[in-house]
Amino acid sequence: MSEVMEHWLDKRVALSPDALAIETPEGEQWTFFRLQQEAKLFAKKLANVACKQKHIGILSGNSVEMVVAFLACTYIQAPVVFLNTRLTEKEIEKQCQAADVDLLLTSTYYRSKAKQLSTTSYTFNQIRELETMSISLPSSIKMEGLCSMMFTSGTTGTAKAVMHRYKNHWASAVASALNLGLLSTDKWLACLPLFHIGGLSIILKGIIYGMPVYLLERFDEQIVHQAIIDKGVSIVSVVSVTCMRLLQLLGKQRYPKNFRCMLLGGGPAPQPLLEKARALDVPIVQTFGMTETSSQIATLNEHDALRKIGSAGHALFSASLEIRKNGKQAAVNEIGEIVVRGPMVTDGYYKREEANLASFQEGWFLTGDLGYQDEEGFLYVVDRRSDLIISGGENIYPAEIEDCLLSMPTIAEAGVVGIPDPVWGEVPVAFVVKRDGALTQDDIVKHCRSRLARFKIPKQIFFTDVLPRNATNKLQRHQLKKWIEERNG
Amino acid sequence: MSEVMEHWLDKRVALSPDALAIETPEGEQWTFFRLQQEAKLFAKKLANVACKQKHIGILSGNSVEMVVAFLACTYIQAPVVFLNTRLTEKEIEKQCQAADVDLLLTSTYYRSKAKQLSTTSYTFNQIRELETMSISLPSSIKMEGLCSMMFTSGTTGTAKAVMHRYKNHWASAVASALNLGLLSTDKWLACLPLFHIGGLSIILKGIIYGMPVYLLERFDEQIVHQAIIDKGVSIVSVVSVTCMRLLQLLGKQRYPKNFRCMLLGGGPAPQPLLEKARALDVPIVQTFGMTETSSQIATLNEHDALRKIGSAGHALFSASLEIRKNGKQAAVNEIGEIVVRGPMVTDGYYKREEANLASFQEGWFLTGDLGYQDEEGFLYVVDRRSDLIISGGENIYPAEIEDCLLSMPTIAEAGVVGIPDPVWGEVPVAFVVKRDGALTQDDIVKHCRSRLARFKIPKQIFFTDVLPRNATNKLQRHQLKKWIEERNG
Repeated sequence: MSEVMEHWLDKRVALSPDALAIETPEGEQWTFFRLQQEAKLFAKKLANVACKQKHIGILSGNSVEMVVAFLACTYIQAPVVFLNTRLTEKEIEKQCQAADVDLLLTSTYYRSKAKQLSTTSYTFNQIRELETMSISLPSSIKMEGLCSMMFTSGTTGTAKAVMHRYKNHWASAVASALNLGLLSTDKWLACLPLFHIGGLSIILKGIIYGMPVYLLERFDEQIVHQAIIDKGVSIVSVVSVTCMRLLQLLGKQRYPKNFRCMLLGGGPAPQPLLEKARALDVPIVQTFGMTETSSQIATLNEHDALRKIGSAGHALFSASLEIRKNGKQAAVNEIGEIVVRGPMVTDGYYKREEANLASFQEGWFLTGDLGYQDEEGFLYVVDRRSDLIISGGENIYPAEIEDCLLSMPTIAEAGVVGIPDPVWGEVPVAFVVKRDGALTQDDIVKHCRSRLARFKIPKQIFFTDVLPRNATNKLQRHQLKKWIEERNG
Repeated sequence: MSEVMEHWLDKRVALSPDALAIETPEGEQWTFFRLQQEAKLFAKKLANVACKQKHIGILSGNSVEMVVAFLACTYIQAPVVFLNTRLTEKEIEKQCQAADVDLLLTSTYYRSKAKQLSTTSYTFNQIRELETMSISLPSSIKMEGLCSMMFTSGTTGTAKAVMHRYKNHWASAVASALNLGLLSTDKWLACLPLFHIGGLSIILKGIIYGMPVYLLERFDEQIVHQAIIDKGVSIVSVVSVTCMRLLQLLGKQRYPKNFRCMLLGGGPAPQPLLEKARALDVPIVQTFGMTETSSQIATLNEHDALRKIGSAGHALFSASLEIRKNGKQAAVNEIGEIVVRGPMVTDGYYKREEANLASFQEGWFLTGDLGYQDEEGFLYVVDRRSDLIISGGENIYPAEIEDCLLSMPTIAEAGVVGIPDPVWGEVPVAFVVKRDGALTQDDIVKHCRSRLARFKIPKQIFFTDVLPRNATNKLQRHQLKKWIEERNG
């Protein structure tokens, strides 16, 4: 790879200035040219308070002004630290310190939250009111340069700042295009937060591909549904629970023909969901990826979707994937840790030497996720290693039990974790969101008995109105464990 | 870029083993799996006589066995030196020495030619008869590794071996996909020789994209026409003269809708050709590229085709382009040398230090071609610098005069060069292939007078049955000069 490229937005504007860059349900329509002009203007105002190499935190919900602020930072060559708006002030404070944030930019909405922090903060509006500095902005990008940092989504409870270099974002966009193809009619809907890789990567793909992004403030099934039905959206990135809600809403309708891909990430997909999608002709592309891989690194292609239901497919072109057990490559169908390699994989966590030593080995990144490959090399993600339940020496994968629970039409959502047990070491317990008020624990146990080995049947079942999920709607099993601890202690 | 990737063909086979890789008009149908199996088998036989790092010459016309031999060489990590079958034994001998060829592989057809050379040679058949060595083939590719070498097409008369590293081929395939898009229904017809980058790059794109290649032994307008009409071909790479022949053949017919791109390279396109294509709804994508840039580096996108007729567009995403005059960036619309940069650009000619010093400056490659950029940055290629005619201090671009000649319906082909003149320094002379026997020199001069400045009107006009073209059908103006020299002395 050449060390230097023209700034991606400048290049895009040279190629297709008047093409649509961002569209919102509120009716905003931004061309790449306008996006560039606004980003450069913002950069020249931002230059009053920030400069090259400064770490700029962004605390904001999805909006075009957030995109403009991010792009402005790329023009002044300041890495952006994306902060999760759902966190408490205390948690954000900690992350700002961990990532050496020099300056915070925030939307008006999060202004008061930002004011609680020790880092100096400005709202986007405040920056816009500053003088326009007469500086010349660099027209190129150093591919080795640090573009952004994000904290891992924290379903395991420990947050580390993943460094994304320009080369990682580039390789991710390229690998995705080689996999999904690239149509001049594509429009990708972004409803994941931009402070997560699943959101930000769509913005960068839009610029690199010259593709419009349909940007939502947050996931809203009605808006997403409508966007697919009559706004020309052809690709949507979802996680299991949001996918389920969309299918529920679809009812007996069908999506239009130009809708070609529902990219399903964020953890193993429940079998019943995949079967439902299949019945409704919804083109699900199951993916495996994480912040560290700059979004997808493995996907199941459409033409294998039916044959390999439940698989996350193969590593994308340019990436590689292996299953390791006890430091060696696992056998076919043997469960082990998923390790990956490729130009989209981060080269490390910011200032976390110990974590880096533990997670990176000879060019491979150890994901901490468990899975296996079948005889054709298709990846099946089983679970996060940290979520594995070991009961009487038997491995129990929470996702398997959740699948079983979700196959009951009366259950809307389910989460399973292990709790300590004096006899078995650990035993599984389940949290269930009912769809039908009459459902009892006995009904559930009866359902499981005919489908699961005895040791896999949840020893306790708790009904709840909502399950703990992070900002991308991924189930947070460590929160379920906390609930139990709080209940018991 | 990650230093290592899985071998591209292995990766492709993991992703889509049963997809069609190569199809021929003779009815051959090869899947990626078969291609891989044959290439690996050939590699294990080739290992009897060759090993890693050896330079393997290939002298062959286009065929699947030639593709297999090339891929086999990638498996044993031996760079391939592609040799032009049209050259004399003497010329090939010289190239083999220049590129340090250790061993020559050849088709049966070129066996006797190969036997004249001092390098040891084997036919593909002879290799296939060797024992299969039980060696394990590397499953990865080093992106910095040397994949292939080709001699520049030699329209200027001096041949240098361009080194193509895997990273160059990769970047070229990626940039092309980002530009043209990538459809699951794509099928690219290759009729340029595989020993030229315009041919080989299609084979590599096929593997990287998972796209079938329709492989022809050579350009044949009937076969190409038929392939577009009813073999599902969606993209064809052509040069001006082959494009013209196809349009001639099209008559009042129209290509089917799935045919989406006639990629026109190999030099500035004559205006009349572009206008004819426009009238026939043929989607011409004009490109600028050369062996040194691993195929296209600039293209004019479809949506600008009508607005910027005659332009080669912008440098592809990841590449950059500038016009230099007297060492400085030229002004808008000012003609200068085209210089380019990007990951698809070679890092040099093999063992030609002096040429490298002259052609590479601070990461930029000086193409030797002349052109200008308009106010929107669109590139217009004017001519090869070496073909420029300077007459009485005025610059004359042969292509401009050729355009003028070709706008006469009675002229089929035209070539213009400068000859020494005691008064003007140089004056233009023209070689013309008539379409109508009755055409006279006077007719032509009369036609030119109303369209060209006086000093641009050819001082002599020669009628000929055929113009000298290289294996990609590019006009060889230096040959025209030789004709005149021979005639004069």
